[in-house]
Amino acid sequence: MSSRRAFLQKMAASALVVPAVSMMKAAAYPQAVNSVYDGPMLRVAIMGLGSYGSRVAEALLSCRAAKLVGVISGTPSKVKEWQAKYNIPEKNCYNYENFDRIKDNQDIDAVYVITPNALHKDQSIRVAKAGKHVICEKPMAVNAVEAQQMVDACKKANVKLLIGYRMHFEPKTLEIVRMRNAGDFGKILFFQGLSGFKIGDPGEWRLNKQLAGGGAMMDIGIYSINGARYMVGEDPVWVTAQEVKTDPIKFKEGVDETITFQLGFANGALASCLSTYAMNNLDRFFLNGEKGFAELLPATGYGPIKGHTHLGELTQPHVTHQTLQMDEMSAIILKGKKPLVPVDGEEGVKDMKIVDAIFEAVKTGKKVDLKL
Amino acid sequence: MSSRRAFLQKMAASALVVPAVSMMKAAAYPQAVNSVYDGPMLRVAIMGLGSYGSRVAEALLSCRAAKLVGVISGTPSKVKEWQAKYNIPEKNCYNYENFDRIKDNQDIDAVYVITPNALHKDQSIRVAKAGKHVICEKPMAVNAVEAQQMVDACKKANVKLLIGYRMHFEPKTLEIVRMRNAGDFGKILFFQGLSGFKIGDPGEWRLNKQLAGGGAMMDIGIYSINGARYMVGEDPVWVTAQEVKTDPIKFKEGVDETITFQLGFANGALASCLSTYAMNNLDRFFLNGEKGFAELLPATGYGPIKGHTHLGELTQPHVTHQTLQMDEMSAIILKGKKPLVPVDGEEGVKDMKIVDAIFEAVKTGKKVDLKL
Repeated sequence: MSSRRAFLQKMAASALVVPAVSMMKAAAYPQAVNSVYDGPMLRVAIMGLGSYGSRVAEALLSCRAAKLVGVISGTPSKVKEWQAKYNIPEKNCYNYENFDRIKDNQDIDAVYVITPNALHKDQSIRVAKAGKHVICEKPMAVNAVEAQQMVDACKKANVKLLIGYRMHFEPKTLEIVRMRNAGDFGKILFFQGLSGFKIGDPGEWRLNKQLAGGGAMMDIGIYSINGARYMVGEDPVWVTAQEVKTDPIKFKEGVDETITFQLGFANGALASCLSTYAMNNLDRFFLNGEKGFAELLPATGYGPIKGHTHLGELTQPHVTHQTLQMDEMSAIILKGKKPLVPVDGEEGVKDMKIVDAIFEAVKTGKKVDLKL
Repeated sequence: MSSRRAFLQKMAASALVVPAVSMMKAAAYPQAVNSVYDGPMLRVAIMGLGSYGSRVAEALLSCRAAKLVGVISGTPSKVKEWQAKYNIPEKNCYNYENFDRIKDNQDIDAVYVITPNALHKDQSIRVAKAGKHVICEKPMAVNAVEAQQMVDACKKANVKLLIGYRMHFEPKTLEIVRMRNAGDFGKILFFQGLSGFKIGDPGEWRLNKQLAGGGAMMDIGIYSINGARYMVGEDPVWVTAQEVKTDPIKFKEGVDETITFQLGFANGALASCLSTYAMNNLDRFFLNGEKGFAELLPATGYGPIKGHTHLGELTQPHVTHQTLQMDEMSAIILKGKKPLVPVDGEEGVKDMKIVDAIFEAVKTGKKVDLKL
């Protein structure tokens, strides 16, 4: 298991949780058991059969409104393995050369792109041109220009583009959003996001600028960027950032190791965040308002998420994030559902604009104004 | 009770502690009960009989190596009250005009200056010139130039200058310092300090630039500055800072409301801190190292301080901070004791240099190099 996977699985046993809680088995998805689903079914092909792709495939088994029906991979042996495991017909299997033919496949509605970051743009645009809805893992691209091209391509092709923001469907997270919208925290004043882990294998693609487009910020820091937006409930208007690199061999030019960044909001709220590949298990969100606060710890790991507010512990049950995400994305794509926290391409573009601005702020040492 | 006092007293019931713990009565000072003290006694006069001065006076009642013997005040009625309460002879009472005469008083060893920040420098220098040791409340001055003048004056007068850094004697804090020095956290990577409260009375001296020298940073933000240094165990080499002011009526020119600041350390460690007068009860320190972590919450209130590390809860007993501080300062002044975390004027100068640099960084928007 890669150090990253090991980390994400262990996030619940965060360094900040004492005593450490062990990884709990996900609770059954209540709706699936308690009611018969007779709505439309989102038929999904997964592009990229790596560790996260496998996780999504497993989660899809518990979905009631989405199912895995196809694969796109460059590794024939993996395709065979998945075919057997998930009962995928040969006609729904593609590789990176021929997947444009998915256009003619009436049994696939959407493709979930789960490949290295730098490949997302071209692959997503090809999927869109093939007339299939696109679900793209975060970060949606390596910069905002690419991200916007994806949005434009999907619009032109008249397909939906959704980003794999699984936290946007997580029950405790949504309870905080609900409370904030209801005014329970009063005016929001401060958000703090700590997002990081210690990356292991120096050879993995996440440390390769060509494939990852950056380092920790693209992979884990983006949780704090995105979290700042959905926790505060507004888009920031400026950003400042500071970088530290202690290991320039492991973290080459263009691959960030540790960055602190600050976001300013129009109403005066501030966010102070950490993104790092050099520290053990940091995964905490803290939101402070005039009348109350909320804390999530761990905040973005695969769960269970734990959290409390000034009113007490959050008790919403854990549901496997990817199961929830895919069922909700089915409703968004097939039934036009509007989620409480959006996951569309435009949201992803905003995050990429912030990423770009953070890198610019690091480079120039200056505050960068944001226009989101 | 001022909102500030109310806050500091309630810090233990911090917004971040759930369920809130009520203010516990301080445990008896163990050494005082368990052994007879036959060492030297530091005879202290307090200058400035405000709320914090009163707190120190009360704490001195439990000291074994220090005692209150005199007062300096501009308010005769307060002097009378204190004389009665603490059995202070008339000959040990001074006002701001005549306190230079303390030079001739053989019954006073040291003066604890607990007046508005902007008065510290001249008052401390006058005390030094009168040949008495100076204990000066934090911030020791309103900038590093003044602070250095105080150090120089005390050196010239051959008296000690100590800053009222009560956390430098707090048992749980010191346990973390001890663990860090023993390598229990491994290489230190990150410190986070959140220091703030919502200030009430807009008329109080802490919001008056002429008396306070600034706003939240001077009063409460300095805990995170100082904390970053004693938790990381090094002096920072650069600082960046961002200011937000939502209420320019309450927080006038030169009086900071909310500032986020970041400190960089030579070994690559980072500190990310918040100083604010606009948010409820923020008082948390978090230290993250390669091998472990420590958290204090509340971290700097009057106690009890609560904390834990990767190894478990910190169980060192609470002792009234000011009692401990004054007994230890007695040992430093009269017996030449070297404390684990220094409290001398030079330490205060370092903090003031960081304060100056933070204000400069806010003004210029640029990273400011520190030479401490």
